[in-house]
This record gives sequence, structure tokens and C-alpha cells, in this order.
Amino acid sequence: MCQLLGMNCNVPTDICFSFEGFCARGGKTDDHKDGWGIAFFEGLGCRIFLDDHPSSSSPIAAFVRQYPIRSMNVIAHLRKATIGPVGLENCHPFKRELWGRYWVFAHNGDLPSLPIPGEGVYRPVGSTDSERAFCLILNTLRQSIGSHKPGITDLYGVLQRITQEIASHGIFNYLLSDGEHFFAHCSTKLCYILRQAPFAPAHLIDEDITVDFQELTTPSDRVAIIATTSLTDNEFWTPFEPGQLMVFQDGHPLQL
Amino acid sequence: MCQLLGMNCNVPTDICFSFEGFCARGGKTDDHKDGWGIAFFEGLGCRIFLDDHPSSSSPIAAFVRQYPIRSMNVIAHLRKATIGPVGLENCHPFKRELWGRYWVFAHNGDLPSLPIPGEGVYRPVGSTDSERAFCLILNTLRQSIGSHKPGITDLYGVLQRITQEIASHGIFNYLLSDGEHFFAHCSTKLCYILRQAPFAPAHLIDEDITVDFQELTTPSDRVAIIATTSLTDNEFWTPFEPGQLMVFQDGHPLQL
Repeated sequence: MCQLLGMNCNVPTDICFSFEGFCARGGKTDDHKDGWGIAFFEGLGCRIFLDDHPSSSSPIAAFVRQYPIRSMNVIAHLRKATIGPVGLENCHPFKRELWGRYWVFAHNGDLPSLPIPGEGVYRPVGSTDSERAFCLILNTLRQSIGSHKPGITDLYGVLQRITQEIASHGIFNYLLSDGEHFFAHCSTKLCYILRQAPFAPAHLIDEDITVDFQELTTPSDRVAIIATTSLTDNEFWTPFEPGQLMVFQDGHPLQL
Repeated sequence: MCQLLGMNCNVPTDICFSFEGFCARGGKTDDHKDGWGIAFFEGLGCRIFLDDHPSSSSPIAAFVRQYPIRSMNVIAHLRKATIGPVGLENCHPFKRELWGRYWVFAHNGDLPSLPIPGEGVYRPVGSTDSERAFCLILNTLRQSIGSHKPGITDLYGVLQRITQEIASHGIFNYLLSDGEHFFAHCSTKLCYILRQAPFAPAHLIDEDITVDFQELTTPSDRVAIIATTSLTDNEFWTPFEPGQLMVFQDGHPLQL
């Protein structure tokens, strides 16, 4: 199994605080140490830092933890290998282009019976069930919707159907974003928190670090953080319902 | 215009020495300061570091310069923006998946009359002529060849035809790799050097740094370095012929 961390905001925000606690789970406070990755959307662009070393000891993770990159959509992942060996090609998040936008995906769970996609446009490079599922989602979106990104209601409907189908093969907690919308699906375990004014101090579970968000924000800022398990011990994290597919935009959950 | 740097080897090798001199051209010894990027293939995996800040002052570039990542295929790029504004989405190298492999591309030159691809599978995310050309190459390979990577002779033929077509729109020096083969095309300016035993010291042009490759290599190592202009002042770099498309594999130019 793995660990997921996502962020969706209405202004470019750095994720250093959350990523600090999250990284500790890759070999220090937990054993998700078979690689890690983090994707930052910046405008239409997207950069991903990947490593097949444990996040708690990776020099690249150490660099990212202390280098604030401001983004409105971030997806991070710690890997505990089950299907597919340890290797860079099997590190999440995965990235592909669809409709002239980058799409980024990370998965927690196992889908042992999910078949390898056949002759669709998107094919996995590595050997994880996760990348297989991502390719299947993108092939389905492309085939069902056509050549342009539709309205969010139509997109949500297609995504929900293929998500349910894939989830029938096992455990399918995932984060998915194209830099405009942020999708989060819970099969078994996922939670989120919305931070907005009045902001307050937050204290990490995995490291003894506190940050006072009031000092770092303006009153109109809104930040949604989504994670496998809560990252702080003095805030209330809302658990997802099993089977729930949420969409966030500008730090808000959308009602669809 | 921009600057290109590529490496193709028969054993995983770090590019720190060449990248040190190359980076200086992004704002220190030259003015290619509108972003930079470097892609490392590792097995089937591929990671890219990108930044829209000048390589000579980017903290990410400083990290990459001192952190040895061993790879058999590397493509790096310094941007001097002409078509498309400064922004992460317009930084090279670009990456897409084709035939279950990642393909990475970087371009030097201008293709002002190259049309935006229409309804093909691959679409540009940013607004450069370069990403347009990359999408056109991949759409052509997919359409002309089908669903599996062919032998190198067939692949070379198709690539040469689409390259010539694109080059008719302007200046088209490029580097392209899928981690197995390394393609380099010269329209106006590109050179290469093959380093193999007996290895000797090399001295950078852009920084006063010398490395003795004999101390860092074994007798069977072979490394090809491809660059817009030579990076060292005590070695002979072979200029490409205008219109020449070379393929490197395992540190060797292939005769096709």
C-alpha cells in the first residue's frame, strides 16, 4: 500500500509544511519507502520530482521539503511496492497529456485483477496496476468524450463510471488533476481538511513542527488538503465515504 | 534561440561535469536565461527537472549540478524565448509516451510557420513551436508505423522524412530519445564528441574546471556528448553536417 497527499487552492501556495510530515512516513514514522514523487502544476505547466529511494532519506526529497514551490494543484505519493518492482518507472505520480493539458495521477491500493490496456492510446511504461488504471481512465475519457475537455458535470459522470469499474478489481484510492480540477476517490481510506479564514496553528503528527497559518495567509485564501490519513493532530480531518469521488476547485469541494 | 546538451552511453554515467559548463550559459557566460530543463532516463523510467528561472541562478539547477544521477540517455536544454512566453509549460525537454515508452525532446531554433497540430493524438500544452514540432513527430510515428516500435532502420526512415518536412519551416536542431535510441538532428549548429579509452583530462570552456576521465571510467566505457557548441577547449568536437540526422546507441553512432 502507499500514501497519498494532495493540495488544491485558490492561490498558489507552497506545500512544505504538509510535505515535511508526509515525507517522514517514507521510512521514518512509517514504512512506505519504495520511492516517492510530487507533482506541482504551475499555470499550464507541471513538474514532477521522482525518486526510487525512501522519501525520508532522499536528497531530492530533502531539497523539495525546503524549497517552496507555489502551486494551486499538488499531488504527492509514497510507495510501498506490491505490484511492480522498485524502480523509477513505477514511482507515482504518473503524467500524460490529454486535450492539450497535463493529467497527473497517484494511487493507493491494489488492483490485482485489472487487465493491461490493449491497443488504446495510453499505455503503461512501468509494471504497476496503478499506471494501468491511469491509462484506462484516460483511454476511457478520450473514447467517451472526444477531442475537447467537456463541462465538469459530463466529465464527472464518465470518470465516476470508469472509477467504479476499476474499483471492482480491488482497492482504488486515488488523486487525479489536470491543473484545473482536482479529483479524489476513496475506496477504503482518504480524508481531507479545508483551511480558510480564520486560520489557526497546525501541528504535525509525524514531526514536532507547528505552523501558524494566520501568519502566512490572507483572509481570502482557501486550501484543501487531501491525504490517506490526517497529517495534523490538532485539526479535524473529514473522512471520505467509501465509493465517494470528490472534485475540488479553487480550494472548494464542488457540489455535482 | 536555445542551447542543447545530450549524452548517450553504454553504462549509466553522471553528466555533472558537462552540465556545470552548460548551466553557465544560462545567464552567466551566455544569455539563454528563460528557463532550462534536464531529462534522465533510468531503465524505463525518466525524470525531468524543469525551471523557468535562469540555470545559472536556479536553486534546482544548483542541486542537479552537484547531485550525480547516473543515466545512459540525458537531454538538457537552456531556453532563450522567441516563440511562446517564459513559463514552465514552455520549458524543454518535453515528454510524452508512445509505444509504452517515454519519449523526450528538446529543440534549438525557430519554426515560425509550423502549424499547430489539429486532431492528432499528441497536442501541445504550451505555446512553443518546439512542442508543436515534437507532437507532429509523434503523431507521424504513430500514424505511419502503428502500435509497436519498429526496427531502427524503419524508424529512422520515417523520422528523417518528418524531420525534413518540419525543417523546411525554419531552424530545427533537436535531440530526441526514448531511452533506447538517441537521435540528434542538425539544421544549422550541433556537434559531438565520443569519449572512450584511453580517456584523458577535459577542461570546460565556460568554467575553469578540469576533470580527468581516466580516474572515473573503466576501459570499456563509451560516452557520446552532443551539444550546440563544444563544452571543452582541449578536445576535438565533430560538427554535424546541416541536414544530418544521427542515431546513437550505447555511446556509438549507428551506421544506417
